[in-house]
Amino acid sequence: MQYIAPLAKLIEHFRALPGIGNKTAVRLAYHVLDMDVEQAKALAGAIVEAKEKIGYCNTCFNLSDQNPCAICGSDQRDHSLICVVEQPQDVAAMERMRDFHGVYHVLHGALSPLEGVGPDQIRIKELLNRLADDTVKEVIMATNPNVEGEATAMYIAKLLKPMGVKVTRIAHGLPIGGDLEYADEVTLSKAMENRREI
Amino acid sequence: MQYIAPLAKLIEHFRALPGIGNKTAVRLAYHVLDMDVEQAKALAGAIVEAKEKIGYCNTCFNLSDQNPCAICGSDQRDHSLICVVEQPQDVAAMERMRDFHGVYHVLHGALSPLEGVGPDQIRIKELLNRLADDTVKEVIMATNPNVEGEATAMYIAKLLKPMGVKVTRIAHGLPIGGDLEYADEVTLSKAMENRREI
Ligand SMILES: [Zn+2]
Ligand SMILES: [Zn+2]
Repeated sequence: MQYIAPLAKLIEHFRALPGIGNKTAVRLAYHVLDMDVEQAKALAGAIVEAKEKIGYCNTCFNLSDQNPCAICGSDQRDHSLICVVEQPQDVAAMERMRDFHGVYHVLHGALSPLEGVGPDQIRIKELLNRLADDTVKEVIMATNPNVEGEATAMYIAKLLKPMGVKVTRIAHGLPIGGDLEYADEVTLSKAMENRREI
Repeated sequence: MQYIAPLAKLIEHFRALPGIGNKTAVRLAYHVLDMDVEQAKALAGAIVEAKEKIGYCNTCFNLSDQNPCAICGSDQRDHSLICVVEQPQDVAAMERMRDFHGVYHVLHGALSPLEGVGPDQIRIKELLNRLADDTVKEVIMATNPNVEGEATAMYIAKLLKPMGVKVTRIAHGLPIGGDLEYADEVTLSKAMENRREI
């Protein structure tokens, strides 16, 4: 009797979202009931549309609504320079910085033996494939500045060295333990500038 | 270039929700892209379904997927006792308490001259209509324990007194300035027990 079924179901769906507690879920659900039907349908439509239109670029594995993505397909970008990141959010952070003009490779995770994430669970093989011809001169490891991110950078660096490609690590201008996604533009810009070979 | 269009649109929709800041909106949007298509469609469906199936009960103006609502239509409830609340969320809070067996009336707001909310903007007329026959013996004013809630309770009490109905005010067991919606069950139960005539 507390919540009628369609409301209870909506609250459950909101509660399943990351970082949304019980009270917030209830508040959001009541807010939806307070919206115009058109607004509610627009919100629902945006969810389905984002999911349906956005996939992964077959080259860099960033989220994209085209294939290759706008960055991989652009002749304004330096395709000899690949910046390797953990998540699509990290590409967005790098692009906010505005002074990186290379291309990206999104691993979709970092090595984490404790969580069962090994080299085959992230897009390392696909990165190696991109180095098959000789266009790529430098690979910048911009994985997160934490234990998993460091281990991932070192692991990939070891694989790439024998291939004769320069491998650099984004500098620790980023606060240790932090997320690249939330770094401010200046810190990120500095960290890129100070990158060193590993 | 920072966010592709369908993602930017989804972030905007999340950001428009109450209490959702920029970072949370971005996090939620990426989470949606990480869902299965079925999960995303279920979330979108729950939003539309809640909005389409839920309307207002024509008697008490609580949210309901039937008319009259389950409470107004029940012969297990005491229809001579009406508890007047500001919002549907407050009915849910009262029902969690489990020891109120009367019926409700949802005003959908409280009087607030500063925000331009006068007697005609909330469901006061509809409450008066419910008192036309002599079934109702007592009206409990359970508006929020803040300035607007008090003023609303007093205003309605003055209207009802000449009609010969007993009007009581839920006791100030609730923390002053707080929201009835978030009161714990014990406080609410105590506040109901200590209600006094006004
Ligand atoms: Zn790409
Ligand atoms: Zn009703």
